[in-house]
Amino acid sequence: MSYNEVYQFSIVSALMDGVASHGVPISRILAHGDHGLGTFRYMDGEMIVLDGQCYAMKHDGSVIHIADPSAVLTPFATVTRFKPTIETRAAVKGKQDFTRLLNGLFPKARNHFLVVRIDGVFAKVVVRTAGGQIRPREGMVDVCSRQTTHNFEKVKGAVVGFRCPEYIMGVNVAGDHFHFIAEDRQRGGHILEFETDGEVNVKAAQIATFHMDLPTEDDEFNEAELKLQAQGIKQVEG
Amino acid sequence: MSYNEVYQFSIVSALMDGVASHGVPISRILAHGDHGLGTFRYMDGEMIVLDGQCYAMKHDGSVIHIADPSAVLTPFATVTRFKPTIETRAAVKGKQDFTRLLNGLFPKARNHFLVVRIDGVFAKVVVRTAGGQIRPREGMVDVCSRQTTHNFEKVKGAVVGFRCPEYIMGVNVAGDHFHFIAEDRQRGGHILEFETDGEVNVKAAQIATFHMDLPTEDDEFNEAELKLQAQGIKQVEG
Repeated sequence: MSYNEVYQFSIVSALMDGVASHGVPISRILAHGDHGLGTFRYMDGEMIVLDGQCYAMKHDGSVIHIADPSAVLTPFATVTRFKPTIETRAAVKGKQDFTRLLNGLFPKARNHFLVVRIDGVFAKVVVRTAGGQIRPREGMVDVCSRQTTHNFEKVKGAVVGFRCPEYIMGVNVAGDHFHFIAEDRQRGGHILEFETDGEVNVKAAQIATFHMDLPTEDDEFNEAELKLQAQGIKQVEG
Repeated sequence: MSYNEVYQFSIVSALMDGVASHGVPISRILAHGDHGLGTFRYMDGEMIVLDGQCYAMKHDGSVIHIADPSAVLTPFATVTRFKPTIETRAAVKGKQDFTRLLNGLFPKARNHFLVVRIDGVFAKVVVRTAGGQIRPREGMVDVCSRQTTHNFEKVKGAVVGFRCPEYIMGVNVAGDHFHFIAEDRQRGGHILEFETDGEVNVKAAQIATFHMDLPTEDDEFNEAELKLQAQGIKQVEG
């Protein structure tokens, strides 16, 4: 894969239907990209991939570095080999404000993908972490009904994320989807809201190429109905 | 690309919104596959790719071999490097009957793609050919309201097609989508119905890998709303 192409394993609708018992080794994901996000088996935690390293952000607030990516499976992940084409400094007042910033930086990306990285000090970051299924095939809406949220203040760290076009909803998450990890690699999660402490460094690129591998030899995936649950995806990934 | 991976350029929702003025050279499509289907600029005709050769099936019933694929553009095409994993002989009583046959041949493909080729003598093939936009951005439903249909009887030829999973609707066409070309390469089109004359040769493979390139530097594509029009797609591609 070249730079700035989306690679994903499985589809977000499979998580909605609770398809999370199996997956592929994270090493296989990292072979396609050094920057991205995803989840782990049984939706136990939030995945962030930063500079080619994979971290698991757990329900209790702890973060684990995945030292051996061949030994850990993921049922869903999205990555790219990130090469920023735009780099700027900006103060960001929240997710909506950042959406407007991206719209301005990429005026012709309505139907393309974007990949984003923000580095700097954040006045506030609100994250959630999914705590995992309590039974096989439990769907993501139910899993996330038990999510914990954490508020970080005055924290230095990195935001990693993607914007996906509307028509990809169900395959991936339409709109902006960001994860956060602190510089000390001790805190992080799926971003619900954030605000920067003054200006931060924003890097991004527009993407027009998409690759997807679907689960094979996976009866859960084969049997799932995978109906589009746009409202549910917005609820748990928005 | 390896064998039996889907490669597509653009998305079917773009055709629905009339995005068909530009595209990529067919040579770029053929670099990703030797077997597939699509359309041409302004939706003028039906494309079939068979054994690495591309043919344009026109509104008036004629068929043109694209001798120089670098000189002709397509706004939407889907191909694979086809390597059949199943080969069988069967008598087929119609599209629905063929759907059942495929279901039996691939019991674990509900959420995967299938690629198909049928060779033999057909008692009946009913095809339509889209005649092209009469104005820029004319949507596919309007274009197909002027489609012509042709009935071929006792004709030897080949069927080329894909089955796409439900969740891909809008990106491509969910369900079965087949084009036909006669052995004499003089007739063909988008299949509305068919019936074989006794047994024919059926080759197929299951696909779990998907690649997509989106149009770039294309204001039509960038400006299109690309809302899911599932009913419209079923109407014109069903």
